[in-house]
Amino acid sequence: MSVSVAGNQTADDGCIGVVETQYYTFAHPPNELKLECGKSLGPVTLAYETYGRLNADKSNAILVVHALSGDAHAAGVHKGENNPGWWDDMIGPGKAFDTDRYFVVCSNVIGGCKGSTGPASINPGTGRPYALDFPMITVGDMVNAQRHLIDHLGIRKLLSVAGGSMGGMQVLQWVASYPERVKSAIPIATALKHSPQQIAFNEVVRQSIMADPDWRQGDYYEHGQPAKGLSVARMIGHITFMSDQSMEEKFSRKLKNGDYSFKFGADFEVEGYLRYRGESFVKRFDANSYLYITKAVDYFDLSGGKMVSRDRPIDTRFLVISFKSDWLYPTHQSQEIVRQLKAGLIEATSCEIAATYGHDAFLVEIDEQTHLIRHFLEKTYYGNGTLESGI
Amino acid sequence: MSVSVAGNQTADDGCIGVVETQYYTFAHPPNELKLECGKSLGPVTLAYETYGRLNADKSNAILVVHALSGDAHAAGVHKGENNPGWWDDMIGPGKAFDTDRYFVVCSNVIGGCKGSTGPASINPGTGRPYALDFPMITVGDMVNAQRHLIDHLGIRKLLSVAGGSMGGMQVLQWVASYPERVKSAIPIATALKHSPQQIAFNEVVRQSIMADPDWRQGDYYEHGQPAKGLSVARMIGHITFMSDQSMEEKFSRKLKNGDYSFKFGADFEVEGYLRYRGESFVKRFDANSYLYITKAVDYFDLSGGKMVSRDRPIDTRFLVISFKSDWLYPTHQSQEIVRQLKAGLIEATSCEIAATYGHDAFLVEIDEQTHLIRHFLEKTYYGNGTLESGI
Repeated sequence: MSVSVAGNQTADDGCIGVVETQYYTFAHPPNELKLECGKSLGPVTLAYETYGRLNADKSNAILVVHALSGDAHAAGVHKGENNPGWWDDMIGPGKAFDTDRYFVVCSNVIGGCKGSTGPASINPGTGRPYALDFPMITVGDMVNAQRHLIDHLGIRKLLSVAGGSMGGMQVLQWVASYPERVKSAIPIATALKHSPQQIAFNEVVRQSIMADPDWRQGDYYEHGQPAKGLSVARMIGHITFMSDQSMEEKFSRKLKNGDYSFKFGADFEVEGYLRYRGESFVKRFDANSYLYITKAVDYFDLSGGKMVSRDRPIDTRFLVISFKSDWLYPTHQSQEIVRQLKAGLIEATSCEIAATYGHDAFLVEIDEQTHLIRHFLEKTYYGNGTLESGI
Repeated sequence: MSVSVAGNQTADDGCIGVVETQYYTFAHPPNELKLECGKSLGPVTLAYETYGRLNADKSNAILVVHALSGDAHAAGVHKGENNPGWWDDMIGPGKAFDTDRYFVVCSNVIGGCKGSTGPASINPGTGRPYALDFPMITVGDMVNAQRHLIDHLGIRKLLSVAGGSMGGMQVLQWVASYPERVKSAIPIATALKHSPQQIAFNEVVRQSIMADPDWRQGDYYEHGQPAKGLSVARMIGHITFMSDQSMEEKFSRKLKNGDYSFKFGADFEVEGYLRYRGESFVKRFDANSYLYITKAVDYFDLSGGKMVSRDRPIDTRFLVISFKSDWLYPTHQSQEIVRQLKAGLIEATSCEIAATYGHDAFLVEIDEQTHLIRHFLEKTYYGNGTLESGI
C-alpha cells in the first residue's frame, strides 16, 4: 500500500472510485435486538459502505456516522451514477480520512430509510410496512446496532468514530456505551442534549408532516408520501442549517417577477431555493423515518456525567469541532462536551472553526476540518513515532 | 388634567379602564384607496382605539402601530371581558405612553382580520369574501390608510409614531411617506428590510398554510380555517419570537410520560406549549390575512436611502430600540437604521436592551422601555422646558 505524505495531497487525490453499499442482517428471531424502549426488533439490517483496507491487526478502522437524513454512501460513486457520497471531500486517498491509511466504515442508522431497518421496512409479523408499529428508537439503539456490524467486521477497537450533527451524537453515544472499543472520537457540530429550541424546531417538523392528511396516521405506504407536509418540514430544517450570513451571500432580495402580481409565488430567490429543497427531499426520504429519527435526537441526553465520569475512567481521545456561524448547534454546546470530558479527566482538543456556512459547515468546510482531523488521526494512530512506523 | 411626576408611577397606575374599538370607513367608490400594486381598494375600514384626550392644539397625539397578528386593542379592557390590550403595560396613566398627557391612537392594519378591511372582508363586487381576490398590500399601503384615519381625527402632526416588529416598519414607513407629519419616531425591534433568513421563515409559514388542503386556494370561508396548516405556521413563528435562553428558562426537558411509549405526542414541555399556541392562533387569526401580511413585510424595503437622505431633510427625532437576545430582528438591523439616519443627518438615539426574552421582549420587557420612551417623549413634547410648561 502506498502512503501519501501528510499535508500534501497528490495530484490524483479525489474520488475513491466506484463503491457499493453492503447490507448486514442480524438479530434474527428469537435473538432480536433489545431496544431502550423495552421492545425488540428483528431481524435488523444495516446498510454500510467501506473504503480503504483493514490492516492485519485490524487497528486502522474508522467508523463514520451520519446526520438526520444521511445514509451509508459517504464517499465514492455508485456504479452508473454521478453523485459522490455526502462526505466525499473528506474521505479518500490523501483526504482527512485517508483511505490509503485507514479502513473507513460508514454505517446507516436503524429507523432510517436508506437500506436499514426502519418504519418503511416490512414487518415480518404482518407482511406490511411497520409504519407506526415500528418501535421508538434512540441514538443508543442506533449505536448498539452499529456495534453488531463492527463485531461482524471483526473489529475489536475502532481507531476513531467521527460524525457531525446527529452523527456527533452517535460518536458521543459510542463512548458512553462502548468506551473500551473506541480509541478516539470526533464529535462535530453536536451537543450532549437538545435545548428546548432544538426540540421546538424538530417538533414543528413533525407537526408539519402529521398535519398532512396524506400522512394517514403513518399508514401511507400504499398511497405515497405526505408530500406537502414533508416538504414544509424539510424547508424548516434548511433554514436552520444555514446562517443568516450564508443566506445573505447566497440569495438576493431581487423579485423574480418585478411586481407584486405573482400572489404567494416564490418571488424571492430564497423562497425558490427552499421549495426546491423541500420537494427534492420528498423523493429521497421517508416521512415516518423523519418522525422517528428527529424524536431519537430529541430524546438523546448524555449531559450530567452520563457519558464519562471520574468513576469510570476511559482512555478515548477527543477532538471536538464546532463552527462559529452554526446557530442550530452553537459552540457553547461543544464547549459543554469539553467541560464534561475535562471533569472526567479525558483528553480533549477542541476547535471552533470560523466558517460562515452555519450548521452545513460540517459538510462543506473542508480545509480546516481536514487539517484538524488528519493531524488528530495521525497522532492517535501513529502516536509520537514516524508516520511510516505504524504501517 | 392632572399630571403625574415623571419617573414615579402612582399607586393607581394600571389599567386604563373600559375601552371600545371604533371604526372609520373611507375610500368609498369611486374614490378608492390607490395601492402600491396598482390596484384600488374601497371602501376601506380601519379599526382603531384611542386612549387619553387630544389637547386643544392637537399636538399630543401618538400613533401606536402593531406587529403581524396584533390589533387595535392595545390598552384597557373591552366591556365584559378581562383581556387587557397587547401593550397595556406600556399605555395608561403614568405609563410609558402616559395617557394623562398624551392622546394615544392605535390603528389596526389593512389586510388584517381584526375589524379592518382584509381578505376575509366582503368584496362589494361579489358579495362574498375577497379571499385571494384581495389585492397585494404593502406596509406603504397600511400607512397610507392610517394617514386617512389621522386626517379624520384632525391631527396635522403626530407627536410620535411607535411600534415594534412590523409596527416598527410602519413607523419607518410613516417617516418615509409623511415626514412632515411625524415629530418623532420610535421603531422597536425592527429592520429597514428583511434578510433572506427572515423571508425564509415567513415563506415556510406561508407554505405551511397553503399545504393544508383545507386552505382551498384561499376560498375556505364557508368551510372553516385551514386549521392544521395555520397552527404549524404559528408554531414556527413562536420559535422565532423567543430566545434560546428564554426557552431554557421556561421549559425543562422533562418527559411528560416518563417513557418512550407516547409516540409523537407532546412529551416535552416545549412541544405542548407550541401546540397550544398554534391551536389558539387558529381561533383568532385569519389564514389569508397571515399570507398577505407576511408578504407585505417581506416586500418592505427602505434600505439604501429610501427612508431619509440629505437631499430631503426632515426634522423627525428618532429613538431606536433593540434587544440583545432578539435573533429574529437582531440589533445589527437597528444599527443599520441608525446609520441611515445619521447619513441623512437625522437626530437618533439608539439603545440595545439586555433582555433575555428574544423578539417577544418588545411586548414584555417593560421597565427599560418605559424609562427610555417616557424620557424621549417628554423631551419631544416639552422640549427643554419644565414638564408643566407644555400642558
